[in-house]
Order: sequence, then C-alpha cells, then structure tokens
Amino acid sequence: MAKKVSVGIDIGGTNTAIGIVDIEGNVLVKGNIETPSHGDVNLYISDMAEAVTGMMNSAKRQFGNMEFPGIGIGAPSGNYYTGTIDYTSNLSFKGVVHVVDLLRNHFPEMKVLALTNDANAAAIGEMIYGGAKGMRNFVMLTLGTGVGSGIVVNGDLVYGHDGFAGELGHTTLIPGGRPCGCGALGHLEAYCSATGVKRTAFELLLRYNATGSLLADKSYNELDSKMIYEAAMKGDKIALEVFEKTGEWLGLGLSDTVHYLSPEAIFLFGGLAAAGELIFKPAKENMEKHLLPFYKNKVEILQSQLKPGDAAIVGASALVWNELKK
Amino acid sequence: MAKKVSVGIDIGGTNTAIGIVDIEGNVLVKGNIETPSHGDVNLYISDMAEAVTGMMNSAKRQFGNMEFPGIGIGAPSGNYYTGTIDYTSNLSFKGVVHVVDLLRNHFPEMKVLALTNDANAAAIGEMIYGGAKGMRNFVMLTLGTGVGSGIVVNGDLVYGHDGFAGELGHTTLIPGGRPCGCGALGHLEAYCSATGVKRTAFELLLRYNATGSLLADKSYNELDSKMIYEAAMKGDKIALEVFEKTGEWLGLGLSDTVHYLSPEAIFLFGGLAAAGELIFKPAKENMEKHLLPFYKNKVEILQSQLKPGDAAIVGASALVWNELKK
Repeated sequence: MAKKVSVGIDIGGTNTAIGIVDIEGNVLVKGNIETPSHGDVNLYISDMAEAVTGMMNSAKRQFGNMEFPGIGIGAPSGNYYTGTIDYTSNLSFKGVVHVVDLLRNHFPEMKVLALTNDANAAAIGEMIYGGAKGMRNFVMLTLGTGVGSGIVVNGDLVYGHDGFAGELGHTTLIPGGRPCGCGALGHLEAYCSATGVKRTAFELLLRYNATGSLLADKSYNELDSKMIYEAAMKGDKIALEVFEKTGEWLGLGLSDTVHYLSPEAIFLFGGLAAAGELIFKPAKENMEKHLLPFYKNKVEILQSQLKPGDAAIVGASALVWNELKK
Repeated sequence: MAKKVSVGIDIGGTNTAIGIVDIEGNVLVKGNIETPSHGDVNLYISDMAEAVTGMMNSAKRQFGNMEFPGIGIGAPSGNYYTGTIDYTSNLSFKGVVHVVDLLRNHFPEMKVLALTNDANAAAIGEMIYGGAKGMRNFVMLTLGTGVGSGIVVNGDLVYGHDGFAGELGHTTLIPGGRPCGCGALGHLEAYCSATGVKRTAFELLLRYNATGSLLADKSYNELDSKMIYEAAMKGDKIALEVFEKTGEWLGLGLSDTVHYLSPEAIFLFGGLAAAGELIFKPAKENMEKHLLPFYKNKVEILQSQLKPGDAAIVGASALVWNELKK
C-alpha cells in the first residue's frame, strides 16, 4: 500500500511555505512561493496549486509512490468553517478570500482540503505530532511578534460560533494598559509577545535610567527580543527583569486560561518560549499564585515540541490527519 | 407509553431542593430536605433517597403513571467526571463525597445518575429548556452572591481535564484590585456579584462623601443589591453609577470570554441579571468596545429564561436529558 503523506501550506504576509509531511511530522519536501502583492487571488491560487503539484511529484520521485489524502492550510484570519481568509490586513487580497473553494478546482479528487488560522494549526500539529499526543484538553500559545492561540477541548479544536474562537492574545491583562496593535488597551499581546518584551525593556531602561545596561546602546528599532535574551544570559539586570516581568504577566494571563478551561497543559511556542526557564519559571510561579486551590499544581506549562522552522507547514499538514480522524 | 420525567436535586449549604421536572422544564412536584450539619454523609444520602422516592410516588398519584430515567444533581464543587463533591467549605461533609456512588445504592435501576456544579447545571438547563435551545456555543454566567459559569462548546459542556473548568468568576479583572472571597486580588466575582455591587456602592459613597444618597442611611450589613436596584429606579445617582460601573466591569470580563470562545450568546442569570438594562446596557457597550473587529455586533448578551425560584432544580434535572442524548 502506498504511504500516505499530507500537504501543509502556511500563508504568510510575504511568503507562502509548502511542505510534504509524513504521518510522523517529518518534512519530506519543502519550498516557497511569494505571497503576491498584486491582489489577484485566482492567479495566486493557480501558482500555489502548481507549486503543490510540483512538490508532490518531487516527493514521489525521491521517496517512491505515495498517496495524498489532503491539503491543510494555515493562514492569518483563516476560518475553518468557511475555508476562507476574512478581511486580513496582512495580505493584498481584499474582503473574503475563498481559498478552499478555489483550491478545490485544482484538486477535485483530494479527500481533505481544510484551512484554519496559524495558531490553531500549530495546536493541531502539537496534538498530532508533538507534546500533546494523547491529550484531550490543552491550550497552545504562539508567542511571536503577536500572540496567537489554539484551544483544544475534548480532543477537538474550539472554533466557537463563527470559527474565530481562541484569540487569547487580545484578552485584557491590564485594564487601561499599553495600547495593543489592534488599538485596544492592555491586551496580553502588548506584554507577552516579542514586541511586548522590547517595550518592557525600554520601560525599564527609562525607569531606572539604566545607562550601564547592555541594552542601553541599541535604538528602539535595533533592539529585539533575541538581544534581550542574550543580555539576560550575560547577567544584565535590566534584561533579567524584562523576562521576570514578562513571565509574571504571562502567568497572570495563564491563570485566567486555567479558570476558563482547566486544561491538562499549556504549550508555549515561538521565540519567547525559546528563552526557557527565564520565562517559564516566573510564568509558572505567578500562574500558581492566582489559581483557585483545586487547580494548583495540576496544570503544566510546557515547551512546544514542534521544530521552530517547520512548525507552520507541519501544523497545517496536521489538519489533514485530524480531519481524517473525524 | 408512560410519560418520562426527570428528578433534579440542588444541594445547597443549608437546604437540599428536590423537584420532579417534565421534559418541557415544568416542575410537577417539589420539596426540600435540610442539608445536615451532622457530617454523616450516609445518613444524608439515605434521607435524600427517601425524599426523592416520596416525591416520585406523589407525582405518579397526581399526574398518572410515569417513567423516571434519571436523577440530575447540582452541587457546589460538584465534579461531573467523578460524581463527587470535592472539598467544599459550604457543607459539613469532609473530603471527597461520593454522592453518585452512594445514591446508586438506593436507585440501582436508574439509567442516569449525574452530578455537576450548580452553574454548569444552570447552563444545561438553559440549553435543554431555556433561551439556549438549539445553540451549540454559549456561556452562562450566574451572578449571585458569587459568580458561577458554565461553558458550552459544540453542544457539550466544557469540563476540562479534571471536571473543574468554567470558573470565570475567578479570572482576574483588575490586577491588584479588590480581594476576592477566595483570597486572590481583582477577580471578576469581587466586582460583578451581588456582594461586588454592595462594595461598589460603598466605594462610591465614600469617594463622593454622598450624604444625600438613598444608600447613605444603610449600614454595611443592611445594604443589599436589591436596595441598590430600587434606589437606582428612583434615580439615585450613586445607585445608578453602581450599575453603570458594574456593567462596565462585566463587559470588560465578557470581552475576554468572547476572545476565548466566540460564543453565539452569553446568558446572565441571578439577582443582578434581574436589573435588566441597568446592567445589560453598559455591559454590552463596554464588551463591544473591547472586541476585535471581527467579533463586533455578533455576540448577544441575554437574560436567562430559567425561572429564578426553580432554576437550580430545573437545571439539575436537565442533566438527565442531556445524558440521555449522548
């Protein structure tokens, strides 16, 4: 019997990554096309379909005959219910983009064509290939430039009434606090993202007038969360306090997550999660501090086991296996 | 064929209410036994079983022959997965109380014996008999002395990993804010419960030194949320501001709920919900203000349609129909 492999597509603002992924989550073939700025969605989907077909053929040539039961797609503002990308400002296409329907024209025989947002795809990837295997209740947080999330309850992703559930990054952490990218005040994302970490660094630099800090020689545009991590590893007090505070804020947010959902574990993915104990320790401590007694010492905060570079296409490909289970 | 009716039991701190409820949610027979302070759980469950049997017989005598497929129980800290009440401070029984197992000895033939906490029971009641009929994604908030909640996703109650999901009252609304009954700071319950309303009234009285307010003649122990409602209806400025602020806080909390779960509707139950537009209007306005654009004007805040007096036993009885659907 031919080996079954799935196709994962990650639609980003400038780049569309495509991967052929086996059932264990190994990427057999991968590549990219440009996410165009021309705004012509039909042309884009045709280019995507051609690239996918090319990679499927390449995989067969390299690894022998195989079956392709489906294509999974992760995209910003991707809606699982409708298979569309709805009004995103990250792409040149306007209004509601019917990705699944358009792709169906190119792959009429494919069993599964499914789309969701990138954080939901990561959560499904964690469940199918990663650390959440066998878990039926967990939450995935992607801590990147922004904060995305995917919620799994009873083994199923929570999409809510309209497909848009799971925007934990836009829950209010500090009422009246920092403006978030979305315009509202005090959202978790304004504190616990890579951007939030940089803002916190400057907040502390100015508060302490910390001219001696390793961070004090960088402009606002130069400084990034990786530099802050490296400074912390060298013992820079400001950088260490940045992670301490970020972890505290994250822990406060996660205590809400537990009160809502009582998950078995919360997975952290993305650049900030790579800071390890610098962020996990204060996050765990502050989460526990805010929990009702019967939740205490039950919920784990874990590193995602998805490989950073491939996580987006691997997560998207996992959608296919998840649909086939249903 | 004999009419099917279910038994609903609501275990409260001082009183255990029992009702025989038909499939439309009408209470045919109801009664009470004392929730004892003697701490002997076997004796209590025997008394409960005898009272239930008595009411089942009474219902048959009054309404003709009927079948009893099950008993549903709502209780503080009730755990659906284990059928137990776990370490509650409200009851005289210590440790883990195996309510379902003990009751099973008295009703070995009963198809369904199910237990959950009171707010979850209310949510199931709303779904089976009330305003959430046909909804698959909604949230129920019970605004009483405390704030309880039940979350329904894809038509199922969210119990989480351990049976304890859905404690929205203990999410943090204002970091470092008012101490909550649980000891933590700034929880939603400290602001949006009947107790929270009273605390807000005194907060405003002292801020404005409002000697002219109708509320200024009541002691801290005398004042209750009903008096504040009545003063608001007479145009008392302090009382009006109490509801305005409570609604704003509630709306902020509900915006988080939407970002987590994207429900079709949020139902409010309990004394505070009875204040109607005084609380619904500011709650709705402030919730909308904090929502990401794609959630705006989609989520309704609705009055529970469960009758206040009977809601607890009716909600508990709904557990039976919900189990039979599975």
